[in-house]
Parts: sequence; structure tokens; C-alpha cells
Amino acid sequence: MLNGPLLLTIAVLGGTGKEGKGLAYRWARAGYRVLIGSRSSEKAVTAASEIMQLLEGSSSVVGTTNLNAAQQADIVVVAVPYSAHRDTLESIKTALKGKLLVDVTVPLIPPKVSKVQMPPAGSAAQEAQEIVGADAEVVAAFQNVSYEYLLGEEEVDCDVLVTGTSKKARAEALTLVEATGLTGWDAGPIENSVVVEGLTSVLININKQYGSTHAGIRITNVPKPSAD
Amino acid sequence: MLNGPLLLTIAVLGGTGKEGKGLAYRWARAGYRVLIGSRSSEKAVTAASEIMQLLEGSSSVVGTTNLNAAQQADIVVVAVPYSAHRDTLESIKTALKGKLLVDVTVPLIPPKVSKVQMPPAGSAAQEAQEIVGADAEVVAAFQNVSYEYLLGEEEVDCDVLVTGTSKKARAEALTLVEATGLTGWDAGPIENSVVVEGLTSVLININKQYGSTHAGIRITNVPKPSAD
Repeated sequence: MLNGPLLLTIAVLGGTGKEGKGLAYRWARAGYRVLIGSRSSEKAVTAASEIMQLLEGSSSVVGTTNLNAAQQADIVVVAVPYSAHRDTLESIKTALKGKLLVDVTVPLIPPKVSKVQMPPAGSAAQEAQEIVGADAEVVAAFQNVSYEYLLGEEEVDCDVLVTGTSKKARAEALTLVEATGLTGWDAGPIENSVVVEGLTSVLININKQYGSTHAGIRITNVPKPSAD
Repeated sequence: MLNGPLLLTIAVLGGTGKEGKGLAYRWARAGYRVLIGSRSSEKAVTAASEIMQLLEGSSSVVGTTNLNAAQQADIVVVAVPYSAHRDTLESIKTALKGKLLVDVTVPLIPPKVSKVQMPPAGSAAQEAQEIVGADAEVVAAFQNVSYEYLLGEEEVDCDVLVTGTSKKARAEALTLVEATGLTGWDAGPIENSVVVEGLTSVLININKQYGSTHAGIRITNVPKPSAD
């Protein structure tokens, strides 16, 4: 596990929110160097020290601005609310050349969050691709996971569907999924992101109709992908 | 189980294909009167008698033309290949007034069937809604099930997501799902059909990447909906 990950740095932009914090925690625990990015570096430093406390100081988590974090990282994860999606990407796109961009954003438009409402690009991930251009590969992942689970230790009963601009990019993202302890699946080209992102609205609707709070999905009838 | 269903007639248009045949078999077994529709009434009669043989004659399955079937039915199910979707609906829309239309169609466009490619309406179900107008309620369901399973007796490890034009229409469709022995979920408004239909391309991609043949999905962390 630690052969390789230790060499890589992951920037989690919007890492002060619960989604980003949960992912940052899991990756730091797996041996990655993690940078928490935020518009306010003060908030990012606070979030980083909270995660370090959870990990009892044995890992490397540092807080800084979104742009600084993106510049220093090998892999950049966008975990901001959809309302900040475009601005965040515009502000860091010069730092993305040759890097993998992991988009965790769900384009929910309140108040109808249980209705699928995609941006003109087709999905948040395709919008990201339009903004950052051909310099970075873009993948979509983690949209369907209840992030509360990521800060706990119990098994998360939800798979992660990974779409992206190339098979290589999806494979890299699947390594990151595995590092969180979840099961990931190659869900195909970036055009399939509408399914992965839209599924979140479907799960919200199921929670509303059946009184649940953390509906998730599992892929069935396929042997779980192995680590190699 | 038989109190109610026996009074209802379901037309399965495209019921000579394996998808439609599997559904027709399950519904006939549950006590519904089933009409197999096809462009050729001869083929429909053959398919109906095949299903009657599987059921050892204890149920009512009759083959006829698509239009005849739709006219005589309370519920109309469209299980045709996407290439025949529009023409089939145009040819029967006068028979749909006040009925429930269940659209099973997945808008796959060969050869890239593992890539989500929705029609301009947003999904096949929304296209159906545009064609049939306000006279019929439209739901989308069963897109993710491997239909081979429906003609067998083993448990199908795949849930059914149901989207539709109203909560009442989705509830009616969920009764039909339950009659097949599968677990259905209210997946929200008709706009969410892109997720349900697109998920089929994601599952096809997973089959291609992981060497499986019948990838499916299950909803997790929600108590299964009960029969009442």
C-alpha cells in the first residue's frame, strides 16, 4: 500500500467541507501526502489540523489556499459545492497541466435536489473538462457516497462509479478509490458522468420516499475488482 | 396477489423480443391478463404460446398486433428496440388515453453502446412523453435488468429504478415491479430517466471491463419497500 502513494501529493480543494474532509482523511490514512485547499488558508489550516488529530499525527496533512494546493499537488480533487465549481476551476486551471483532476461535484440545484438538472455541458465533470481544456485529464467519482461515513471506521455500503476522459485516468482514479477502502468501478467515458452525478438526485429521492438517510448503490453480479 | 391483478390487462409491445417475453412471463405468472403485441400478429401469437407453455397453460397470454394490444389493455408496456421506439409509439398513441405507459426502452446507439447517448428530449421516456402527450402517464422501468433472468426461476440480483410523470404513476409501476418478483424503488420525476436509462450503458461498460455478463445494481442502506 505505501509503495507509491507516499510519493504522491493530493490536493483536496474545498477540503474544509465534510465531503472533502472525509476524503482527505482516508487518503492521508492510506499514506498519501494531502493538501487541504480552501479560499481561506486559515480555514484550510484548521481543517488540516482536525484531520491530523483524527490520525494521531502519523500522516501529512497541510492546509493552504486552493491555488497553492493545486500547484503543489500531483492529483487535484474538486470537492466544492456546485455553486463554486466554475470559479474554483477558473482560479486554479493554470496549475493543472499534466495532472489528474478528480471532480467530486454534484450539480444539485436547490430546491429541487431530487430532480436531475445537469449544466449545458452535460454534467459537472464535462463542464470541468471544458474549463480546464486538454491540459488535464478529468474523472468524476465519489458523488454517491455519504461522506459522514468516510470519517468513521464502519464499512461503507456504497460503491464508487468512476467516469473519465481516458481509461488510464479512470485507472488512476480507481487506485485512489481503493485507497479510501471503497470499491470502485470503471463506469466508462466522461459522457457517462450524467449517470453518476444524476444518481445522487435519485438517491436523495429514495431517501425522501422511504425515510432513509444514506441510500447508496452496489454493483451486482460482477467479481469485485482486485488490487492489481 | 390475485385480488386485483386478474382484473387488469397488460399489453407488452415488442413482446416477441427477449425483454418483453421475460416481463410478459412474469406478469402472466402473477395473475395479470397479458397481451403480446408485435408488428406481426403471427409472431405475437407464437411468442404468446411459448409463454403459455412455460406457464403450463394456467394463465392468459394472447398474441396480437401492437395497436390491438394497446387498445385492449389497461397498462401498455413498450419493450421495443430503440430504433423502433418512435414509430411504435406513434402507431398506438390514440389507444393510450387514461392509461399507464411503461417504457422499458434503452436508447442505445450502436456501436458505442457503453457510452450514454440520450435523445434530444433528454431520455427515451421523455421522448415517449412528448409523443403521447398529456393523455397518458409515462414511467421508465426495468432498463437495468438482464432479461434472460426473467424467464428463469433464480433470484434476480438487480433492483428496478422507476421514474415517472407522477408519484401515482410511479406507485402503479412499482406494483408491476413487485409482481415480477423484483425490488423496485421510486427514483423520482421523469427527468431522472436519464440516470436509469444511462445506467445501462454504465453496466455494459462494467461488463466489458471486468469480463462479466450481467452486471446489475442494488440500492443499499434503505429498508426494502413492503407490499402495502
